[in-house]
Amino acid sequence: MRDCEYERMTQTRTDEAPSSGRWTQNPTGLLRVEKGFRLDAVDTRATPGYQGDKRAANHGLAACARELGDLQERLYAAHHEADSGPSVLLVLQAMDTAGKGGIVRHVVGAVDPQGIELAAFKKPTAEELAHDFLWRIRRRVPGPGMIGVFDRSHYEDVLIGKVRELANPEEIEQRFQAINDFEAELAEAGVRIVKVMLHISPDEQRDRLLKRLNRPDKHWKYNPGDVDERRLWPDYMEAYQTVFDRTSTEAAPWFVVPADRKWYSRLAVQRLLQEALEDIGPQWPEADFDVEAEKRRLLAT
Amino acid sequence: MRDCEYERMTQTRTDEAPSSGRWTQNPTGLLRVEKGFRLDAVDTRATPGYQGDKRAANHGLAACARELGDLQERLYAAHHEADSGPSVLLVLQAMDTAGKGGIVRHVVGAVDPQGIELAAFKKPTAEELAHDFLWRIRRRVPGPGMIGVFDRSHYEDVLIGKVRELANPEEIEQRFQAINDFEAELAEAGVRIVKVMLHISPDEQRDRLLKRLNRPDKHWKYNPGDVDERRLWPDYMEAYQTVFDRTSTEAAPWFVVPADRKWYSRLAVQRLLQEALEDIGPQWPEADFDVEAEKRRLLAT
Repeated sequence: MRDCEYERMTQTRTDEAPSSGRWTQNPTGLLRVEKGFRLDAVDTRATPGYQGDKRAANHGLAACARELGDLQERLYAAHHEADSGPSVLLVLQAMDTAGKGGIVRHVVGAVDPQGIELAAFKKPTAEELAHDFLWRIRRRVPGPGMIGVFDRSHYEDVLIGKVRELANPEEIEQRFQAINDFEAELAEAGVRIVKVMLHISPDEQRDRLLKRLNRPDKHWKYNPGDVDERRLWPDYMEAYQTVFDRTSTEAAPWFVVPADRKWYSRLAVQRLLQEALEDIGPQWPEADFDVEAEKRRLLAT
Repeated sequence: MRDCEYERMTQTRTDEAPSSGRWTQNPTGLLRVEKGFRLDAVDTRATPGYQGDKRAANHGLAACARELGDLQERLYAAHHEADSGPSVLLVLQAMDTAGKGGIVRHVVGAVDPQGIELAAFKKPTAEELAHDFLWRIRRRVPGPGMIGVFDRSHYEDVLIGKVRELANPEEIEQRFQAINDFEAELAEAGVRIVKVMLHISPDEQRDRLLKRLNRPDKHWKYNPGDVDERRLWPDYMEAYQTVFDRTSTEAAPWFVVPADRKWYSRLAVQRLLQEALEDIGPQWPEADFDVEAEKRRLLAT
């Protein structure tokens, strides 16, 4: 806790040790997609708001994991058996190799798995296609007290859906409205939505794909289709820009996180999650039984 | 990897550092329920097969987490998108406070959440009760390449089901047969089943419940019903004995893990999981594409 506070709070220190890092500005404000945002103006190698190197960031990630875990446990304790109540939904979108898996493993994986609901959305099945595009999404919305993580999401239906022309423009247009209505409804019900695009450069992706091809233990992560998608990079960027223009709302804002440096993107997403939890401010629930009477009852056994 | 090997293999060393620990015997054989097993002969404070203290065990747990993670990743890589193939199913049963949650958090939580399917079975819902008792269980059997974890399971239906007389003796009897058939069918389909009972003493449970009552941040984990269940301890132990007599099979053996010392039970369950994975022996899959051709294709983009 203290270490994490240190990482977060020491904004006035001037005598840092070589590997110490710190947030000089709150990344939430820096990364949030506001009116006028331009994806093509984002430097994918930048580390907005953070002063420190990889080593410092990894130290910070470990130091803050405990605080995140504490907040998660309080959220779970206070709400998980209720019929309604707050939850957190982290939506992860990105081009291939941008690091979604690493976020799940290193950021989400550091908290108790009992409080996590992870949903990976792949190419829709025949059953899923027979329903509205939000049908399979609604089924995986996290329940009260939980942190839900979407590894890809309903945004695929307006990204690959648009780039690959899987739906016509009118349909895509209707989906944006449906998404905003859906997310507003979730927010109203207490779901704190954090939408993250991990943003890498095409060069960085090439290096990462090449690394996969060069390591037999990484071949399983490579798919020849990745190169085909890669060729459509400008189309995808344009589709993302439209997504940001149309769906970064007060109820469910987008955050574009530079991700060429994995250590930065992990630290930044951890911080976004932590702030979402702090906003909810979960408290240990009061006992709904007489503590002293229970002690007596217990000691009589 | 090397550290874990050290923990596991140094059976001939005589000059251990004070906090080093080691398995002197394979716990799999020591903890497995064989014909003639008597639950009431188990010492809940013992640490079968392990020579070392809490500090050593925690070191060993961390050291072996990486090896377990590597095995899990290979299992996932090799099988997760197939229609059939091996998986692991860890079934956790125990009296309250015995440490199921700690196993999930500290043993299972150390591997990539993307390869884990966690199912916590609570009191059945009306919908679940309208079906056969195995209905809700079948829906949560891990798919190929996954590690499934059942926090409680179908065994509740022959434990609390028997102790609280929720079903008549003939029905309970039929359930044993149904369970053995079901588990044999899973094993046949490639599910490596590891059934664990975490075994604590009534005194240890009292201490742990008291600790929950003494800490406001633990009150949420306490339920007055826990004391009612506790009063039925001998009945539960008898029901567990019957479970072991009837359902510890070659295809799906039971392991009774002494759990008064949490550090031992975590280390032992980690080892059981690791052996299950080693038995499957998953290998990185061969590339189903031409690696060199893909490199050229990639570099042309």
